[in-house]
This record gives sequence, C-alpha cells and structure tokens, in this order.
Amino acid sequence: MAQATDKPVVGVDLGGTKVLSGVVDRDYKVLATAKRATKGETGVDAVVERIAKTVRDAVREAGMDFGDIAGVCSAAPGALNPEDGIVRLAPNIEGWEDVPFAKLLSDQLSGVPVFIENDANLGALGELTLGAAQGVKNMVGIFVGTGIGGGIVLDGKIWRGSHMTAGEIGHMVVLAEGPVCGCGNRGCLESVASRTAIERDIRLGLRTGRQSMMPELMKKDSRERLTSGIIAQAYQARDPLVYEVITRAQHYLGIFIGSVINFIDPDMVVIGGGVAEALGEAYVEPVRDVAYQYAMNRKDARNVQIVLARLEDHAALLGAAVYARQRLSRRA
Amino acid sequence: MAQATDKPVVGVDLGGTKVLSGVVDRDYKVLATAKRATKGETGVDAVVERIAKTVRDAVREAGMDFGDIAGVCSAAPGALNPEDGIVRLAPNIEGWEDVPFAKLLSDQLSGVPVFIENDANLGALGELTLGAAQGVKNMVGIFVGTGIGGGIVLDGKIWRGSHMTAGEIGHMVVLAEGPVCGCGNRGCLESVASRTAIERDIRLGLRTGRQSMMPELMKKDSRERLTSGIIAQAYQARDPLVYEVITRAQHYLGIFIGSVINFIDPDMVVIGGGVAEALGEAYVEPVRDVAYQYAMNRKDARNVQIVLARLEDHAALLGAAVYARQRLSRRA
Repeated sequence: MAQATDKPVVGVDLGGTKVLSGVVDRDYKVLATAKRATKGETGVDAVVERIAKTVRDAVREAGMDFGDIAGVCSAAPGALNPEDGIVRLAPNIEGWEDVPFAKLLSDQLSGVPVFIENDANLGALGELTLGAAQGVKNMVGIFVGTGIGGGIVLDGKIWRGSHMTAGEIGHMVVLAEGPVCGCGNRGCLESVASRTAIERDIRLGLRTGRQSMMPELMKKDSRERLTSGIIAQAYQARDPLVYEVITRAQHYLGIFIGSVINFIDPDMVVIGGGVAEALGEAYVEPVRDVAYQYAMNRKDARNVQIVLARLEDHAALLGAAVYARQRLSRRA
Repeated sequence: MAQATDKPVVGVDLGGTKVLSGVVDRDYKVLATAKRATKGETGVDAVVERIAKTVRDAVREAGMDFGDIAGVCSAAPGALNPEDGIVRLAPNIEGWEDVPFAKLLSDQLSGVPVFIENDANLGALGELTLGAAQGVKNMVGIFVGTGIGGGIVLDGKIWRGSHMTAGEIGHMVVLAEGPVCGCGNRGCLESVASRTAIERDIRLGLRTGRQSMMPELMKKDSRERLTSGIIAQAYQARDPLVYEVITRAQHYLGIFIGSVINFIDPDMVVIGGGVAEALGEAYVEPVRDVAYQYAMNRKDARNVQIVLARLEDHAALLGAAVYARQRLSRRA
C-alpha cells in the first residue's frame, strides 16, 4: 500500500445540530474525537471554520501534528457530488446550496486533501467495511433519525444513481394521503417512521391528555427534551402512548423494507440511527416480522437478513475514514 | 460474430392466458408470429407442448425449417432462474412451481438451445435494446397489466438481485392499509394501479349505479369484457366513472414512480402494458406530473425521463430474442 494511506485520516460527521470529528488510524481505530455545535445560522463560512476547528481539536487530542494526517473526509446531510466536492443542497443546514465544501474545508486545513460524501452513504459504507454488513454484496442501510437516510450498496459499491441522488428513502411514499411530510408531500416514510414523526405523535398524545409516563421521565431532562433514551425507557416499560406510537412506526418501516426487498432484492438490510440504537433488537424484531410478510417471495424472504447497525454513533465517521482511504489510494 | 447468431431466433411470450411466438431475424425484424391459448388447467406438460407447437407454427409461417433456428427464448410471468432454466413460481399459471421449463421445452424442440427469463425483465431489455430506452444506462420498466411487473436495468444490464427476485414492483406498498391485494397484503401498487384494480373499481361503480357509458360500450363486445380499448374510449370521452378511476390509478402510479426515482435515481422510467398503450401519451402525462412532484430533488426531477414504451405487444417477445442472442454469443 502507498505510504500516504498508512497515516491516519480524519473522518467528520457533519449534521444539522452537531459536528463530530475523529482521527482514525489505518486499522480503523478511533484515536480521538472532538465535537462542536453546527450553528448553521452563522453562515456557510463560519460553519466550515467550526468544522476545521473540530478537525484540528481531534488531531491535537490524539497527540498528533496536522502534518501526520493523510486526508480528511466529511459526511454531509444532503445531495452532493463526491467528485467535484460540491454540496448541492443540505436542507437541514441554513444556506447550504451549491457550496464548494471540499475546497473551502481544504483551504482551512493547510491544503490537506478533503473528500465529501453523503452521510447515509458513508453510514452504509462503514457498516459494509467494518460493521454489520462485512462481506455483503448487496445491501441497503436505513438510518432513522430526524429524517430517514438511505445508503444503497450494489455489487459491493455505493450506488449513487444517474444524478447522485439515489438513496433518498425518507421521501419514498408508503402511506399515500398520510401525514404531511417536511417535503410538502404526504405519507413519505419520514412522515410515519422518523424520530420526528414519533415525537410528533407522542407530543400530540400528551397535549390531548393521553395516559403516559413521559411527562414524568421528561422532567428529569433540564430542557424537557424527548430524547431517544427516554423514548426507549418508556417503550420498555410498555407505556401505552409510547408503545403504540413506536409500534406504528415499526409497522410502516417494516412495510417499507418489504417493498425494498421486492424492488432490489438485497442480501441484507441494516437499520441504524438513534431510536434503533437506543432500543436495540427490541426495535428491529417487529420491523423484521412485518417486512418478511410484505416480501413477495415469502417462502424465502428470510434469505434477506434484516439486522441492527453495529457502528452506532461512529457509522458515518468511520465510513468517512474508509472513503478517505479509498480516494487516497486511488490517487497514489 | 459467430455464425450461429446470424440465424433467426424464436422469442416466446408466455402469459397466463395466451402464448405468443415470433421468429425474429438478426436485425430484430419479426418475420412471423403464432398464438395459442395457454390453458394452464391442462397441466405443465400440456402447456409446454402447446408452447412448442406455437414455436413450430411461427417457424413454418416464416417459411423456414426448424433447423434454420439458432435458439429459443421464452418469457415467463414469475420468479425464475435464467441460468438453470427452472421456473420457481409463476402464480398466474396453474401448477407452475419448480418447473424445469427450459429443459422441457428444449426436449419438445429437437434439443435446440432454450433460454428463459422473467417477462418484465425481457420487456425492459427489449425497450433498452430496440425501444424507448436505447442507449440508456439506468432504467426502470413498468408494465401495467393484470398485475404490474418491473424490469430494472442498472449500468446497462438487467438487475436480478441477490435471489433472482428483484423488480417485483407490483407488491411494493404505496397506500398502506389500502385495498386488499391478490398477495394478501394491502395497498400494494397492483391493488391501486393495475388493470385489475381499474376493472374492480369500474365494476363496483357500475354495480352501485354510478353514471357511465360503459354498459353501452361493453354491449358491443360479445362477452361484455372490459377491454383496455373500451376503457380508453370511455376515458377519452371523459366518462365520469372511468375518468375518475383512471385518474386515481395514474395518481398512485405517479407517486410510486416518484419513490422509485428517490430510491434508485435512474435516467429513465418506461411505462408499458395494455392500458398505457391503449391510452398513449394521455395516460403517461398525468403520471409524469405527479412523479416529478414526489421526486425529492424537484428542481432537477425532469432529468429523469418518464416515457411510454415503444415495442407494445412485442416488448417481451423482442426482449426474448435479444436475450437469446446474448446467451448464444456467450456460448459461441
């Protein structure tokens, strides 16, 4: 292997609320991480500067010089072109439209090579290389968070589609005429199965006086947030409101996965993201049962594995490290 | 090119109700065709014999000897393995489960090479090679008939998936909790947009006394069938019942295509099948408008072409001829 790729790389997970950077060695061990709020409202340049700072913080935290780093890869939540390094549109970060992100970040980082890729694609790549889907040829990664992101792997490679927009699974319709989605349509997967949909339904229940232990649990959080951890606690205690809401979200996610199986017929579907990780196998099991009922080829449906992601919070960061190494060795 | 592939081949379109065979020369000109009823109730061996007869009829009709034929390829409506020639399950033909179709047909045809492939896959291959999608890399073919079949082309090749079951788009869910589908689930694409769904809704309207010109039009057919031609006539005349039913089917097909764009991001979606062909562009236009609204990347949605299939009744037959040539040249 070329020498450049023996050095560590830095993976960055840029999200709508926070930036996480990690120094990752050639065996994919995370040596150190650093975190900051994204603060999209401060503008593109300020956000890029904050990202550059978390990269330098992580490198310092690992006891290294920036010169020890072979390259950087940042995940971004949106449509982008990994070849020219431009983020076309990242709807969850203010003003991120046609941003030459790779160049801007490289300029802030002494010209080190910077690559970018969609966060769900990197999550899928991470699971494929280091997580639940190692050795799998055809795989769909589903990451349930504020939205729902998808990463499609075909013949061992990320499938980007004809216009770099493949994997927008959050806006595939499962319940036409269903709840209004953030995108303006109705019944998208996100509108019935995302963390946002779950929170919407729980808050509606609370507002209308449905019986729940949630008010009690939320008081323990200083900002009365509905965290994934609290939701998991209430689900495990069979809180009637939360249990119903989560069960409904699982039902629609299961139907969706059945449809994905019918379309692309993968070896494996990997489910990750906050709620899935907080609930673990208890979240995946009902989803799996529904999915197999909706797979057309029912007799052999279980040939398609449906499993929990393994890399948890570090999926995109590690995927970014994998992708950085792939791109660096392409250059070497 | 090897000499074997200069000879004509015979393409066969095996459906639940009829068998169509055609002799196709090396320039993909259909020299002659022959047709018979499938009569699935007569059993697998009798059906294979009838298929063999239509093949010989078409060859005779073309003024040829059977020895002039390089090979045969038959489309079949179901899950099958083109490599071992076994039809795993063809739900619309009685008793077709684990049938070694290629071998049985070859035995009936003096041992000539016989290949088989799924009908929607061949429809897509036909459109790709000779029809609306020539030169296109990534394409999804949607064939709306009794059911709804799909053929996925990625990087110029039919995508079969990990277990040869990809493209079962008829059983992807678009309206969860919607109408019961033949598969036992609810809200599959077939249950809201197939010819069967359209006929169900028209007949329900007629039974419950809704205003329509359909009874008048149907009288002209000796068996009072609801043919695609009659449906098209009523739609064009803006018959209130038929227009509403077709508009609803178009709405759901459009939503579905938007979802397909969000998932796989193709260059083109090709729509074929009886109703689509009978109505032509009038059928596709409203579908296209809805699909572009449901494509996440709205600004550039029109980069994905949504067009009518071109090969009409001969799509699967010509696709079969293309596939037979591909397989024969693989051998040569």
